[in-house]
Amino acid sequence: MSISMKPLGARVVVEPLEQEEITAGGIVLPETAKEKPQKGKIIAVGAGDRDEKGNRIPMDVKVGDTVLFAKYGGTEIKIDGKKLLILRESDLLAIID
Amino acid sequence: MSISMKPLGARVVVEPLEQEEITAGGIVLPETAKEKPQKGKIIAVGAGDRDEKGNRIPMDVKVGDTVLFAKYGGTEIKIDGKKLLILRESDLLAIID
Amino acid sequence: MSISMKPLGARVVVEPLEQEEITAGGIVLPETAKEKPQKGKIIAVGAGDRDEKGNRIPMDVKVGDTVLFAKYGGTEIKIDGKKLLILRESDLLAIID
Amino acid sequence: MSISMKPLGARVVVEPLEQEEITAGGIVLPETAKEKPQKGKIIAVGAGDRDEKGNRIPMDVKVGDTVLFAKYGGTEIKIDGKKLLILRESDLLAIID
Amino acid sequence: MSISMKPLGARVVVEPLEQEEITAGGIVLPETAKEKPQKGKIIAVGAGDRDEKGNRIPMDVKVGDTVLFAKYGGTEIKIDGKKLLILRESDLLAIID
Amino acid sequence: MSISMKPLGARVVVEPLEQEEITAGGIVLPETAKEKPQKGKIIAVGAGDRDEKGNRIPMDVKVGDTVLFAKYGGTEIKIDGKKLLILRESDLLAIID
Amino acid sequence: MSISMKPLGARVVVEPLEQEEITAGGIVLPETAKEKPQKGKIIAVGAGDRDEKGNRIPMDVKVGDTVLFAKYGGTEIKIDGKKLLILRESDLLAIID
Repeated sequence: MSISMKPLGARVVVEPLEQEEITAGGIVLPETAKEKPQKGKIIAVGAGDRDEKGNRIPMDVKVGDTVLFAKYGGTEIKIDGKKLLILRESDLLAIID
Repeated sequence: MSISMKPLGARVVVEPLEQEEITAGGIVLPETAKEKPQKGKIIAVGAGDRDEKGNRIPMDVKVGDTVLFAKYGGTEIKIDGKKLLILRESDLLAIID
Repeated sequence: MSISMKPLGARVVVEPLEQEEITAGGIVLPETAKEKPQKGKIIAVGAGDRDEKGNRIPMDVKVGDTVLFAKYGGTEIKIDGKKLLILRESDLLAIID
Repeated sequence: MSISMKPLGARVVVEPLEQEEITAGGIVLPETAKEKPQKGKIIAVGAGDRDEKGNRIPMDVKVGDTVLFAKYGGTEIKIDGKKLLILRESDLLAIID
Repeated sequence: MSISMKPLGARVVVEPLEQEEITAGGIVLPETAKEKPQKGKIIAVGAGDRDEKGNRIPMDVKVGDTVLFAKYGGTEIKIDGKKLLILRESDLLAIID
Repeated sequence: MSISMKPLGARVVVEPLEQEEITAGGIVLPETAKEKPQKGKIIAVGAGDRDEKGNRIPMDVKVGDTVLFAKYGGTEIKIDGKKLLILRESDLLAIID
Repeated sequence: MSISMKPLGARVVVEPLEQEEITAGGIVLPETAKEKPQKGKIIAVGAGDRDEKGNRIPMDVKVGDTVLFAKYGGTEIKIDGKKLLILRESDLLAIID
């Protein structure tokens, strides 16, 4: 998927992945009332925030990473009919394989 | 469009762009209840905030950039009958082409 | 107008300007429910806040500047029957010509 | 007035001044619902807050200054039947003549 | 248990341990209304947050540690039918043996 | 009064003083609804908070000082039937004679 | 009492002490509605928080200290039937003898 979008600061663009209900090795969200993460693929990464000296703080994720992120976060957009999310890196919980 | 307005600090002046409902390659806002971004063109850029030593932190956007920004943010003004927004750079989500 | 008032810190004294309803090149406030800025002239400028080393952070505005500022901010005073506002510089949005 | 009171940190002791309703050159509070400042004379000044290195940040006001301050702030005390206020310097808006 | 998940920042992945009600030397949660911690085993550790210079702040826990953590914290996920928690290190209270 | 108590950080132990209603030179609390300070004597002083380098920030008060402090602050204890208060130095308003 | 628990960061483990109602030299909590401290003995001390350079900020308390602490704070655990509390050092008010 070609995307011509550059997230600003420490933001990333994530394409949400459908979640299998039960799989061996897959991530399955429980049925409880706790906050549930979502799985997605990173398709664009910002340059990172600046530290107090104005230098960029490097991002810990890169394009292609599959990540878990908090469900409530981010801003939803649509490109070519595809639903995407703009999230801050701090809303990402973990990189999974 | 000539504009004689200098935003202060890390603020920018944005001219909102009308959003096509459905286009190939265009940004289309979904119909959900999530926060929806708007598209706009930057027509003026401030000098940037100062870091703790008093030096300017450079802005990541420039005049002419098309940006997505959070809908709720900013202050609305009108110049020559044109509706503009004064936003902080931190309210800008991404630069798009 | 002679004014013998020295704002403290990063504060300024602003004389609000009456807003023309519709003019070519003038600032006209829209009729929506969004936050609306006001136009004013700066008639006194503080020495600026101090950074963490105790040095003054220079002010970005000067006496005579015409500025847009958030309507809700500041403290209203009257001098010689003239209504003035004491505002923090961070409440100023832009310098206009 | 002799006062044996040393405000701590960046605090000052202010003696509120009665406000003339309408005078040429005097400060007159408007009748609107906005926050209204009060006028007072500084009669004691603290040593100032310490910066992150433990050095004192100098105070911008001195004993004898006439100041405007936000009405809501401070702590009211009485000495020799005189009502005084202990305020933080950040609650002072401007020095007037 | 093999887990292919890398927590981001100062986060850890914890496998909650069942709590024995009463044991000599075991941790037993009281029956009061106070906040109660849970016991768990750390199965993955992030690289740590970055300090203001961009350097990593080392983590105080390692894979295999048994920890007490605040019950309310974290994000619940399931891997291979096993319930896990992604927590920030600051939500961990103590390492126990 | 001998007291074997060491306040931690920037805390002090204060013995509240009874307030005379009206005296020449004494502190008299007004009858208004504003926040009213209390008078007390400092009987123990902590070592002070640490700055960001781990050095102690010196305390501005010492044992024996009579101070004004905000009424709402602190933690009340009793030693030998005497009511004392543990307060942070930042809750102290002024040293009086 | 042997305890194999290492509090994380600036946390301590405290064993609450029963409070005598009225004793000469003892700490007695008053009957008012104000916040009341509790007395306890420190049985484990964390390594301390890290400053902005990653160095440990030394703890001001040590194992064996008797301390006063705010009642509301901390997390309650039970070890060998004994009720203990995990508290942050900043919730400790004073060391007493």
